[in-house]
Amino acid sequence: MSTKGKVIKCKAAVVWEAGKPFSIEEVEVAPPKAHEVRIQVMATSVCHTDALNIDPNFKNGVFPVIVGHECAGIVESIGPGVTNFKPGDKVIPFYTPQCKKCKFCLNPHTNFCGKLRDFKTPTADQKLMEDKTSRFTCKGKPVYHFMGVSSFSQYTVVSDVNLAKIHDDANLERVCLLGCGFSTGYGAAINTAKVTPGSTCAIFGLGGVGLSAVIGCKVAGASRIIVTDINNEKFTLAKALGATDCLNPRELDRPIQEVIIEMTNGGVDFAIECIGGYQHMRAALDSTSVGGGTCTLVGVKAGDKALDVSPEELIMGRTLNATLFGGWKSVDSVPKLVNDYMNKKFNLDLFVTHTLPFDKVNEAYDLMNQGKSIRTILTF
Amino acid sequence: MSTKGKVIKCKAAVVWEAGKPFSIEEVEVAPPKAHEVRIQVMATSVCHTDALNIDPNFKNGVFPVIVGHECAGIVESIGPGVTNFKPGDKVIPFYTPQCKKCKFCLNPHTNFCGKLRDFKTPTADQKLMEDKTSRFTCKGKPVYHFMGVSSFSQYTVVSDVNLAKIHDDANLERVCLLGCGFSTGYGAAINTAKVTPGSTCAIFGLGGVGLSAVIGCKVAGASRIIVTDINNEKFTLAKALGATDCLNPRELDRPIQEVIIEMTNGGVDFAIECIGGYQHMRAALDSTSVGGGTCTLVGVKAGDKALDVSPEELIMGRTLNATLFGGWKSVDSVPKLVNDYMNKKFNLDLFVTHTLPFDKVNEAYDLMNQGKSIRTILTF
Repeated sequence: MSTKGKVIKCKAAVVWEAGKPFSIEEVEVAPPKAHEVRIQVMATSVCHTDALNIDPNFKNGVFPVIVGHECAGIVESIGPGVTNFKPGDKVIPFYTPQCKKCKFCLNPHTNFCGKLRDFKTPTADQKLMEDKTSRFTCKGKPVYHFMGVSSFSQYTVVSDVNLAKIHDDANLERVCLLGCGFSTGYGAAINTAKVTPGSTCAIFGLGGVGLSAVIGCKVAGASRIIVTDINNEKFTLAKALGATDCLNPRELDRPIQEVIIEMTNGGVDFAIECIGGYQHMRAALDSTSVGGGTCTLVGVKAGDKALDVSPEELIMGRTLNATLFGGWKSVDSVPKLVNDYMNKKFNLDLFVTHTLPFDKVNEAYDLMNQGKSIRTILTF
Repeated sequence: MSTKGKVIKCKAAVVWEAGKPFSIEEVEVAPPKAHEVRIQVMATSVCHTDALNIDPNFKNGVFPVIVGHECAGIVESIGPGVTNFKPGDKVIPFYTPQCKKCKFCLNPHTNFCGKLRDFKTPTADQKLMEDKTSRFTCKGKPVYHFMGVSSFSQYTVVSDVNLAKIHDDANLERVCLLGCGFSTGYGAAINTAKVTPGSTCAIFGLGGVGLSAVIGCKVAGASRIIVTDINNEKFTLAKALGATDCLNPRELDRPIQEVIIEMTNGGVDFAIECIGGYQHMRAALDSTSVGGGTCTLVGVKAGDKALDVSPEELIMGRTLNATLFGGWKSVDSVPKLVNDYMNKKFNLDLFVTHTLPFDKVNEAYDLMNQGKSIRTILTF
């Protein structure tokens, strides 16, 4: 019996208050309105941005909320006006829309889309659908969406400009990683830093994003990839992915930028900062070659002080930039990344350290916060 | 009678102490040592960087000194090992060397050269020749060089990696401007910002560098060039060079970045800051489009606070960079710029508001400081 046009009752992980654990609840998911698509989530992973948003220290959190934004699923039904999707399509939703109509979407130099309303705090954006209402209800109360995705639910509703159809044969338990972390780190190297063949690179932080940046540098042909992390256990995987030198700042007797400058005779061509916070941004910029180095910021530590940059630091050819979703125009690019994965251009399997049933979302969350997982895949 | 190998006595403008006027003196110019070239300066112009270095507020000034760094001349004699120049060659010297051997010179992404020793304060660099001695003596005392050029003298000695041979038919009273200001502003637009056809640009400050940036934006095909200055008299020339909109921040009732964002429906593609100082850098960055805007810093106000940049300001595709000498690899590029001028790709004549005999250097300096000149050419 078709569920089209009807409310679906299903399981979701609701956070009722900041700092509280996920609560597995029965929620009601309304049918998609105009230019919306209801999808059945088949696999979702857990990303630090989810943790950030439900942290009591994050000022922009709203509750109750269904977080989760790195997933893959299958179209259940479409709302009026939707032309690019049909029930049964395999899809990946994104927090970065691509409407293909606004002046930004028409500009090849940015993946910003005018549909993203609060671009300074994207994690606080798209907490309701475009008509300012929610499609989720739990115990009679409306529940907020998260970044336009809300994947910690068996069913979710997303805008048709936040969604891409992918290859019918894609393994959703792997390509779900292309919905955020992998694409961000990989694209930071490929699109934003624009790593060149034979170059030297330094990557700060070896979470899922940093490790993906290692892959990006390797695919771009970097000859030296220096990685840093305070957890030596990360280095085995980093080396398997292409890292050539591993540094643990806690084991050094001086600032890490000094060590990197010495190792590279003057600094790296590309530094990619995947942790967030002043200290790491400073180290990353300092580590780049004064002549032509590029520092790309990926990590964001909300509330920490800004990076102080004087023109004298940049005049010899340094560039400072940053990335959101790796600079990819989401709808156009992710289906191609899915194909690249299927053609073995890069290996996502190494990232999946754990696979758990959806009910164990709190366990997945703890594994991440304790640094014990790269990515945990939750299946429904 | 040849002067080769002999000390030359000639006229120079010496500054004996910070804040004192130029004193026209007879100086002795020693013959060039290995890899040095002695040139007869035929025309020099006056640039703000000269003024900066002799200002009592600038901590890195050394005295007595012969400043001046924007000039053109003729080779008088060459030292041992010089192979690219011969007496009689028309030449332009630079404060930015290009040795063509160091790893930076071999990197196409920077015009930094390892011969530049103090890259954070280039105006304090090259105050002596590479052997740590001066070629200038006045009243028995050694006199410091300035930025490897010291053009406020009838004769000067420069390193052969700070010098380019130019076209025999070049008008030295015009192409001297390619030794600094014009090349810096023009290159900031062409090489560093990489202005694209059809783009919108904002240029902060209409000194010689800012006006040259206007030409660069125009040559690059920008469709809109917004310029800002506190002196409305600058706008006539700016419009003649291609500016489409002129803003005087003192005549606006709100911050200039707000006005520019409104005028351009979200910010310009390229902002080029040619004044220096926190307030202007902030306005320039704020004025760029969050989606893909590039902010290029050219002006430096020594001692002012650094620009505070948070990743959230850059993640949607903004880039922050800066330029020294417009990103040109000096020796390779300036002869081509001379040819471009001779082929009327751009017009330097409009920049020359005054031509004075060298003895009137203090008058030229006052005209610049009072904002009454774009460039004054001093002839010998």
